[in-house]
Amino acid sequence: TIREKAMALLFLPALARMAVCGGTHGNELSGVYVVQEMERQRKEKGEGVWPIPVTTVLSNPRAVKECRRYIDTDMNRCFSRDTLSSPITDSSPYEVRRAQELNNLLGLKGSTDAIDLICDLHNTTSNMGLTLILCTSSDWVTLHICKYLQTKITKVPVRVLVLDFPISDAYSLESVSKHGFTLEVGPQPHGVVRADIYIIMKEAVDLTIDWIHKFNSGTVFEGGDVETYMLIKSVDYPRDPETRTLTAAIHPQLQDKDFCLLKRGDPLFLSFSGETVNYEEEETLHPFFINEAAYYEKGIAFQLAKKMMLTIPAVRVQKD
Amino acid sequence: TIREKAMALLFLPALARMAVCGGTHGNELSGVYVVQEMERQRKEKGEGVWPIPVTTVLSNPRAVKECRRYIDTDMNRCFSRDTLSSPITDSSPYEVRRAQELNNLLGLKGSTDAIDLICDLHNTTSNMGLTLILCTSSDWVTLHICKYLQTKITKVPVRVLVLDFPISDAYSLESVSKHGFTLEVGPQPHGVVRADIYIIMKEAVDLTIDWIHKFNSGTVFEGGDVETYMLIKSVDYPRDPETRTLTAAIHPQLQDKDFCLLKRGDPLFLSFSGETVNYEEEETLHPFFINEAAYYEKGIAFQLAKKMMLTIPAVRVQKD
Repeated sequence: TIREKAMALLFLPALARMAVCGGTHGNELSGVYVVQEMERQRKEKGEGVWPIPVTTVLSNPRAVKECRRYIDTDMNRCFSRDTLSSPITDSSPYEVRRAQELNNLLGLKGSTDAIDLICDLHNTTSNMGLTLILCTSSDWVTLHICKYLQTKITKVPVRVLVLDFPISDAYSLESVSKHGFTLEVGPQPHGVVRADIYIIMKEAVDLTIDWIHKFNSGTVFEGGDVETYMLIKSVDYPRDPETRTLTAAIHPQLQDKDFCLLKRGDPLFLSFSGETVNYEEEETLHPFFINEAAYYEKGIAFQLAKKMMLTIPAVRVQKD
Repeated sequence: TIREKAMALLFLPALARMAVCGGTHGNELSGVYVVQEMERQRKEKGEGVWPIPVTTVLSNPRAVKECRRYIDTDMNRCFSRDTLSSPITDSSPYEVRRAQELNNLLGLKGSTDAIDLICDLHNTTSNMGLTLILCTSSDWVTLHICKYLQTKITKVPVRVLVLDFPISDAYSLESVSKHGFTLEVGPQPHGVVRADIYIIMKEAVDLTIDWIHKFNSGTVFEGGDVETYMLIKSVDYPRDPETRTLTAAIHPQLQDKDFCLLKRGDPLFLSFSGETVNYEEEETLHPFFINEAAYYEKGIAFQLAKKMMLTIPAVRVQKD
């Protein structure tokens, strides 16, 4: 039974090396400053500052310098197996080159040499608190770290969002590592660093290092249930059919209500001339990435998820 | 006495024509959508949709299209007399060209042909509610409109900020018109439109049109006191002396507290390693533009103002 599976103890390999990556999107500043602060700490206190080896990476230095999301193309869509193996020419986008560099540094993706865990730091203009985004629902290590963060962080909601891609199609940076997740914290405007958001992100990174150290040291992490949200689909803004310009904004009653329960008849949009557009579907779902700045160009006003409980087994490190 | 001056009735010329400008900064979206909605209203209902002639302008169309603040340089610094009269060459920044175009359309600045009033629409990531920014403390028409908005809008704080530039040095778009002000609404992330912020901005524009119509129709507007804030100075972030990168963020106790009273010993910044930097000056002042995204590159963490009561005379339109 599921209950017995949860009680079983799984022995898993130690996590020898992890990477903390910031600035994958150059205008998401909390991650940039967390990486900067970790590099300062290492300079001040030496390599032993953390109980495990941590590689720090500023993922998209050119975009960080210009304080833009990207130079040529969204880098966090460049880590699919196809893009990572595409030949580089003079006309290759900067981010495709840089993604291949990062794959050489932290991968190779899908190989035994790949780094054990990438924690990729992101911000959103949506009111998503701390959201941990995973590409798969079957990685016990990552789900245990999520459970640990959900237990330890109480100042903001900690939610787990599962996209469930096949790894070869997964296009985000953390898909290069064996385990790994995106750490998404908001609301924070792009191009701004807010101390409250920075502090939550730094705490989540410190707790991730903490979990890995405890795991490597032989701590048994009990199994149990983890509440997750599974991505179902994206919803675009109402747009002018000819110009494609927005004709409505997120409705004030939906704005900032990420992960609420959306029911038939609830308001979604308020047009610029004052009309309300309601949610018309029967299925109750949870909206998130509500009014994320970077998703206007992707045609996404918000995404919808289904809540799902995952049962994970107890885990312990393998003895050598 | 001041009281008698306030009681005097001043006869002033009618305001024949006004302009509403949005997208002076291309990623400040409320103004872009207010202008779009006004153009839709005009298309639907004809020129008579407003009781006075209103010119609508998308100030920086290229920056709007790219959803960036500007292409080459900040356009809202291009309307000084010097920049407006500088010769255009192949290497002139796009915004300097466009500023000269707008001066031809709405000016010429300082001439009798200049449009009567420009209302230039802006957004800020700072929690400034509705802030009306004026270049001078001696324009009774503009101050009367401010007083009117302060009376009519109750959902958010309405504050008046005075920069007090000589008009020839004033570099912002509304300095092209005889009267005029910048309408700054926040908090809203750049690249995002929030319905609540859009609604406040649209209401302020509608009330401005309303005031001008009443004034032109002969309504007497009583004199009295207007609470204003006078800009004193700007304060930069703590930065690394070599790299110039930020070493601290706005302190959580100051974040979102625009226009609070800042006293000696109050926290200003929290460094990324956890130390607090306090306000050390004797003078109590009011901070604003706290953590505005666009001001990182200008070296401004926040600005400081002094509260000041201005007494304005009663006004009425001149008979022909």
